Parts: sequence; structure tokens; C-alpha cells
Amino acid sequence: MEDTAAKSARQSEVVMTQMILPPDANNLNAAFGGKVMEWIDICGAIAAQRHCRQVVVTASMDDLHFHAPIRVGWIALLRSRVLAAFRSSMEVGVTVHAENPLTGERTLTTSALMTFVALNKDGGRVMVPPLRLDTEEERVAFQEAEKRRAQRIERRNASQSWLKVMPGELD
Amino acid sequence: MEDTAAKSARQSEVVMTQMILPPDANNLNAAFGGKVMEWIDICGAIAAQRHCRQVVVTASMDDLHFHAPIRVGWIALLRSRVLAAFRSSMEVGVTVHAENPLTGERTLTTSALMTFVALNKDGGRVMVPPLRLDTEEERVAFQEAEKRRAQRIERRNASQSWLKVMPGELD
Amino acid sequence: MEDTAAKSARQSEVVMTQMILPPDANNLNAAFGGKVMEWIDICGAIAAQRHCRQVVVTASMDDLHFHAPIRVGWIALLRSRVLAAFRSSMEVGVTVHAENPLTGERTLTTSALMTFVALNKDGGRVMVPPLRLDTEEERVAFQEAEKRRAQRIERRNASQSWLKVMPGELD
Amino acid sequence: MEDTAAKSARQSEVVMTQMILPPDANNLNAAFGGKVMEWIDICGAIAAQRHCRQVVVTASMDDLHFHAPIRVGWIALLRSRVLAAFRSSMEVGVTVHAENPLTGERTLTTSALMTFVALNKDGGRVMVPPLRLDTEEERVAFQEAEKRRAQRIERRNASQSWLKVMPGELD
Amino acid sequence: MEDTAAKSARQSEVVMTQMILPPDANNLNAAFGGKVMEWIDICGAIAAQRHCRQVVVTASMDDLHFHAPIRVGWIALLRSRVLAAFRSSMEVGVTVHAENPLTGERTLTTSALMTFVALNKDGGRVMVPPLRLDTEEERVAFQEAEKRRAQRIERRNASQSWLKVMPGELD
Amino acid sequence: MEDTAAKSARQSEVVMTQMILPPDANNLNAAFGGKVMEWIDICGAIAAQRHCRQVVVTASMDDLHFHAPIRVGWIALLRSRVLAAFRSSMEVGVTVHAENPLTGERTLTTSALMTFVALNKDGGRVMVPPLRLDTEEERVAFQEAEKRRAQRIERRNASQSWLKVMPGELD
Repeated sequence: MEDTAAKSARQSEVVMTQMILPPDANNLNAAFGGKVMEWIDICGAIAAQRHCRQVVVTASMDDLHFHAPIRVGWIALLRSRVLAAFRSSMEVGVTVHAENPLTGERTLTTSALMTFVALNKDGGRVMVPPLRLDTEEERVAFQEAEKRRAQRIERRNASQSWLKVMPGELD
Repeated sequence: MEDTAAKSARQSEVVMTQMILPPDANNLNAAFGGKVMEWIDICGAIAAQRHCRQVVVTASMDDLHFHAPIRVGWIALLRSRVLAAFRSSMEVGVTVHAENPLTGERTLTTSALMTFVALNKDGGRVMVPPLRLDTEEERVAFQEAEKRRAQRIERRNASQSWLKVMPGELD
Repeated sequence: MEDTAAKSARQSEVVMTQMILPPDANNLNAAFGGKVMEWIDICGAIAAQRHCRQVVVTASMDDLHFHAPIRVGWIALLRSRVLAAFRSSMEVGVTVHAENPLTGERTLTTSALMTFVALNKDGGRVMVPPLRLDTEEERVAFQEAEKRRAQRIERRNASQSWLKVMPGELD
Repeated sequence: MEDTAAKSARQSEVVMTQMILPPDANNLNAAFGGKVMEWIDICGAIAAQRHCRQVVVTASMDDLHFHAPIRVGWIALLRSRVLAAFRSSMEVGVTVHAENPLTGERTLTTSALMTFVALNKDGGRVMVPPLRLDTEEERVAFQEAEKRRAQRIERRNASQSWLKVMPGELD
Repeated sequence: MEDTAAKSARQSEVVMTQMILPPDANNLNAAFGGKVMEWIDICGAIAAQRHCRQVVVTASMDDLHFHAPIRVGWIALLRSRVLAAFRSSMEVGVTVHAENPLTGERTLTTSALMTFVALNKDGGRVMVPPLRLDTEEERVAFQEAEKRRAQRIERRNASQSWLKVMPGELD
Repeated sequence: MEDTAAKSARQSEVVMTQMILPPDANNLNAAFGGKVMEWIDICGAIAAQRHCRQVVVTASMDDLHFHAPIRVGWIALLRSRVLAAFRSSMEVGVTVHAENPLTGERTLTTSALMTFVALNKDGGRVMVPPLRLDTEEERVAFQEAEKRRAQRIERRNASQSWLKVMPGELD
């Protein structure tokens, strides 16, 4: 039995806090991009999971931008929220702020949009609860998510000529 | 002094091979999405670095799609290639194939498009060599990269209403 | 110059969210105790650092109790707060709740009390801002912290006979 | 069938040696506190397990003091020993010495007291063998352990007002 | 049913590319020897597995030489190839080149010879396909592998007096 | 100034204890070979470092044999000892025993012979103290180490035809 009552995005918000330690660093003494992506993926997945209370898997990531580096010793503050729920998929927004530990100043360093899909025990897709839109801002954010979804499907169906130039079978 | 002679994409291709081990797994016994993103980031960065022979940092990631899971015990085969070089940035395509170790069968499981920026020692952006386009397929892939770049800038400048609904200062 | 204006504990609260992944597990398929301690240490250190805006190091940990295991696939929700500020040290409380991802139910699984010390660039101890006590509950929590501190010093000065039976120089 | 013959603490002593490598470091170029706690937890657990030859889980940690940092490149020398065996729980002492690799000098940097509980296959608590006390020092250490155990229970039952000021449900 | 048709070594070649990141480093700012061994083991295992398409386990490693360090920030380029297939074991050669990311220059830094054994589901040894020797160089490499195998067995049967001086039961 | 007084091997013996946790496992639920090699490398390096009290780097590894797997949940007991000291290099023997945590039974699962080189601050080779041979067994072990060293040099100088069949520049 699935929980189909509309849920507010508020209920599935996630806050993650990470201290940038030496093993998280790249060779420029800042958080390594791949590590930040890993945290973004987890932060987004927890929000999606809280919305649908099902197992979720990452379907896609878009518009991930690194605006500024996060120094070793600084704090990474990740926040995620469900922006839109479709049939069995959810779009989740994730932001990463860098906090200077000595001043407390926070700057937006990274943002990303992710899509997660809800699965049942057999790995089949299941319906997720609709998203309750409580404010005008939430409604606008939802409409933009719907547009992005259409563009995403369009881009996926478009000619992906770049796959043809990738290195072939000999590795 | 910068190396400005056009370079072929062939020269910067990267092949990475990873065995999916238990620490790389999610709770579904498949490679954890965040871990695959980490490998994609490294694989793409090496290609960009081989093209410009400068320090590079990740600027963005788009169109990352997980088509299928990679089981623990399977092999992940990553390949990356520079698709377009602009002034100080490069678009790199990355594909991930899953190889069944007992049959050798390979399936495309993930693909992503990344942008890297070349930096000098002071962290300022530097010019990268132009990409030599040797085949018709390379020319088409380059044109598509140019279009994606324009769309990316457009999307970045567009209203990003979703940022307004993200959880605020209290964490 | 040091910031000596009293600060409310509210301002230094930390929320950390972690998904229990296979590499975090012990052989009973639950979060490994040592890993949870690592997260508790980081979560407590960030709160202490936010209070004093100086570099902090862990001085002690007490009353760490594991009430219940956190299963792989569940969410660990850590929260920390400065309970008392002394001259150059701070007592921080840390709690860990386990969240069942499919039901959302949360249970307190671990709690711990930690002491951190603030250091200047030369590694010397520096004064930390006093803690502003805004509510009756905060005053009681502070008084208990003062008692624990006295007991801690007493226990440290008491005969520590157990050190005499520890394995000696031959390793 | 359980092994109930008294066992000497000698038989369950553990020596662990770890080289402090860059991924173990904090931002002060010394072993990260959380990492040392992880090693202490494992070192203590092995001693408890060797005493009872059952699966053990960490129940509590007390009196963990960091007396001095361990530099990257130095050796951490951990030792653990069962100090007291009660019905189904054991108190284990753990010490950590830092060894300067170029001089061989060793300093006590950390010590901690831990309690472990023995479990059967169904997760129920099982009896552990009594501890054979062979020397006067062992008898004194055991009596102190009994006192600490009583204090620990007392502290656990005492008002834990600090839990009331911790950040609440909204995260 | 086992695949017993002779297979060319070409088909099981492996290329692995790793960027040396801070957590891979030793205290001399170069790739930590143990980490490189880990990568060599995986790279060799994949080649063996591709040859026999069975589960393989590492049986031995010999002639591992570190000719030069690989700096943090450089690229490690691992290559492996099956040199000889015996009844249920395979000798695999692995080389590691260091690539300077700013010049592209590559140097052989490490090489090793490994033996892997193929296992069925019950952990018993299974036959592996013969190695097809296509070139004169492959035939010479195979003959040397046969000699090394004889020497390896000889060394294993020879008096291993060193085991007698190793530290004994008290740990 | 270098310490050139002969030193007994006793003084540089190392005991390392590791619990096999899920992240250390391969896909057969046993300790992953590469992980065990990493521990062997560290255990050997500490013994070499304790002998010469200089920075040491791994020069070679030979005769690494995996006799039996170590199950997840078991204890790996590593021991290392300097077998021979030459001018600036040392041969170190390392053994790994698996301890069944429920019975205490220990089995030799892996052994390896390693060579380390002592370096000064500029990375140049430095003399190491001679090894004092106190017992007949130590003298025999030393003589065997001398023989192995000669064979090692011989093997290194011999035709290494296998390098010629390794995959070439295109990766």
C-alpha cells in the first residue's frame, strides 16, 4: 500500500554538515569536486527518500555548478529539498554553502538539480506522493521543474553525436 | 608560455578501469551513485588536463544519466574525451560501461558532460589550445557542444526560482 | 583580538545527516561504533568552533552510550550544542538519532559529552566567549556541566591504577 | 555452551600499531581525534572479544582524554586489556602512545575506558567468563572498575537535563 | 562448462588510470607504496579474470620494484597482461607509469609479477583456457614465466629459516 | 650523524592487529588482497624505520604468498622483523596470521619479504646500522637474506622480456 496523500516539501528537507578534512582535498587544498558530488548525491537522495519513504536511486544530475572552492578546514553546509514530484520520479534541488570557520561567513559554492526514482523491493518503479504546493514560490519552482523535465527528455532524445566520438572497444 | 597549437582529441583520451568492491556499494549491492560521480569527475579532469597541460578545476556537470546499475564484483570501464575547447574552458564527455566479469558483456550504464576550466599558478584562468577537428563526427560533436554551452549560459542566467525555496539560515 | 561578547548556544547548533552505507558497517550490518564516534567528534567540534570562531581540538569524551544500533541503509541524524563555556574550554553535547528511511520513525541511539579547547595559531590556549544562558533549561544544563567538569578533574587526579596493569614496553 | 572458566587478562591483551598517514590527519597535521577514537574502539573490542570469544558490541566510552597530538608520520601504538568482567559486560582499558619514528621516544597521548557487551547469535546478552585476578595490581584495578561501573549507572540514571536543550525535530 | 579454447593475451589487457590525490599519499608527498600495491593487485586481477572469466584470487606477488616515486597530483597509469596460463593459475605482469600532468612525460615507476588462481563457486580450483602465443615475443615471455614458476616452487620448498625468527605468540 | 652501532632485530619487531571490516572485503567476503598488501607494506616499513630511525621507502616485495583467506569479522595479526641490514637497505620479513575470533585459533595466511631503503632529508640514500646477530637462527636467516639479495639483483639484470609484450602507448 502506498502513501499517496500530498506531502509538503518542508517535511523532506535535509541539512548535512561536513568538515573538509585532508582526505577530502584535491591538490589545490580545496574540497575535491568528486567528493562534493558524492555528498550532493547522498543529500539529495535522503530528501527524495523522505518524500516517498521508498528506496530511491539516482536517475540524473544537471546544472551542477561549482561557483567557488571550499578550503580544507572549512565547513560544507548542504541543503536539499524536493522541488517537484512526478509519477515515480522526484526533482530535488541541492545547495552547498562554504562556511569560514573563523568568521562564520557563508557563501553559496555549488548547486545542482537531481532526479531520483522510487523503487519497490523487486526493483520496479512505484508511484510517489504528490507534492503539496503551499506558497507562490513553491508553485513557481514546481513549474520550472516541469519545464526542465521536458527539456531533459528532449535533450535525451536529441542526437547525442558525442557518444560516436568516444574511445571504442580497445582498452 | 602557453601551448596554443591545436591538439587532436585522440591525444587526451582517458581509459579508467575500476572493480566494484564492497566499499563502493550502496544498499542495493550496486555501485553507489556518488562514487561513480567521483570517478567520472576524475576521468573527465584527466582528459581536460591532458589537453591543456595546466591545472584544471571542475566548473559544471550536466546530463549525467544513470541508465543501469553496476553490480558489486563487476568492472566499471570509464572513458573520457575532450569534445570542445573554448577560450579557457573545455567540454569533456565521459561514458561508463559495466562489464560482467564472467561473460565479458559490456553495457553503457552512465554518461555525463562536464566543463573544466584551466588555471595558472595564481588561480587565474588561462587559454587552452584549440581542438583540432579531424573527422566529420568530431565536427558535429563540436557544434553540439557549442549549442550546449549557449544553453548552459542561458539556463544559468534564467530565473532560478528553486533557490528561493531552499531551507534558510537556521540549521 | 578575541570576541568576548556572550553568545547564545542557539548560534552554534549543528545538524549533521549521514546515510549508513556498507563501508560504515560492522559485521552485524549496523553502523560500526568507531565510525559513529568519528562523526560525533566532528559534529561536536563544529559546534565548539562556531561558538569561539577559533581552531579547536578534542580534549575529552565522556558518557558516550550506545543505546541501540543503526542499521545499514538507515539515516544517522547528529545534533550538537555548546552546553557550557569555561575559560578556554567548552562542553558540547552530541546526540545521534537513527531514522528508519521507510517509516520516518526516529530513535535516540547514542549520546555523548565532549570537551573542546580553543587554540591560537601557536597552539596556545585562548579564551572563548561566555555562553549566554537564555532559558531556565539552559541554566540547569550549564550547572550540570559545571558539576561534570569538577568530577572529571577529580577522576583525572584520582589514582588511575588501571594504567599500571596495561601491557608494557614489549610490543 | 559457554566458556565460564576464569581467564587471565594477559590472554586477551591487544597491541595495535598504526602509522599516521595523510588521510588520518586533521587540519593541524596531527591524527584526527575521530580516527583515533575509531582505532581505540577496535582495539578495545578485540580485547573484549578475546576474553569472551563471543560477538561483542560497544556499550559505552568514558574518560577518553587526549593528552597530546600525534603528528603525521609518527606511529600510534595502541594497547588494550580487560580490566573487569561482570555478568555479560566487560570494562576494557585502552592506551595510545605516540612514537617518534626518528628517535623512538614514546609518550602516552590518549587513554580511554570502554564497556563492551557479549551477544549470542540472536542478539541477546550472554554471560562472559570471570576475570582471574593474579596480582595485587589487577585486584586494585578491578575494584576501581567496579566503582566506575556504579558511578556510570548513577550518572545514567541522574537527570540528564542537557538532552532537553538539544536542537529539536526541525532539521 | 569451461571455456577451454586458447585465448590471446591481447583480449585480457587492462588499462587503469588513477590520479594521485592527498589520501593516497605517504609522508613524502608521493603515492604511498601500499596504495600502489592495492591498485596493482586489482589491475592484475582484472586481467586474469578477463582471461578465464571465472572468479580469481591472488596467489602470489614477486619482483615488485619501486623504481621511482609518483608525486601527488601526477597520474598513475597501470597496465596488466596475462603472460602465461598454466592449469588453474595465470601469471600476470603489471607495470605502473607516472605521468607528469603538465608535460605529459611518462616514466616506468613500478613493475610486478603476480599469480592468480581461478575458482569455481565452491572455492575449488578450475582449469583456465590456454594462452594463445601469437608472436615470438609472447613465446619468449611465456618461457620466462615457466622458468619463474619453477623457481617460485623451488623457493617455496626451500628452507624458510626466516619464519623461525619471527616474533612468537605473545602479542 | 648516523647511528652505526649494531642493533638487535628484537628492538625493531612490530605487531599490528586489524579487524577485518566490510570495507576491507573482496567479493568473496574475505580480506581483499590489495588491502592486506597495504598493511604488510606499513608493518614492514615500521620495522625498517625502527631499525635505522630514518625515513624509509619501499624498494621491493618478493615471495608474497596468500596461503588462505581471512574472513570478514576475523582478526589479522601482522608481525614484521628486520632479517638483514646491508649498506642502506634492509630486508624485512612479514607474516600475517588469521585469528578466528570465536575460537582463538590462529593460522599463517600470508608471508612476504620486503626491501626498504633509508633516505636523508634530501632523498639521498644513507647508511643503516648493522644488524646484531645474537642466535644461530638469526645467522642462518641473515645468510638466506644475502642469497635472496644476490638472486634479486640477478633477476633484475636478467632479460625482462615480459616488459616487451605489455600494452603500449595508446591508452
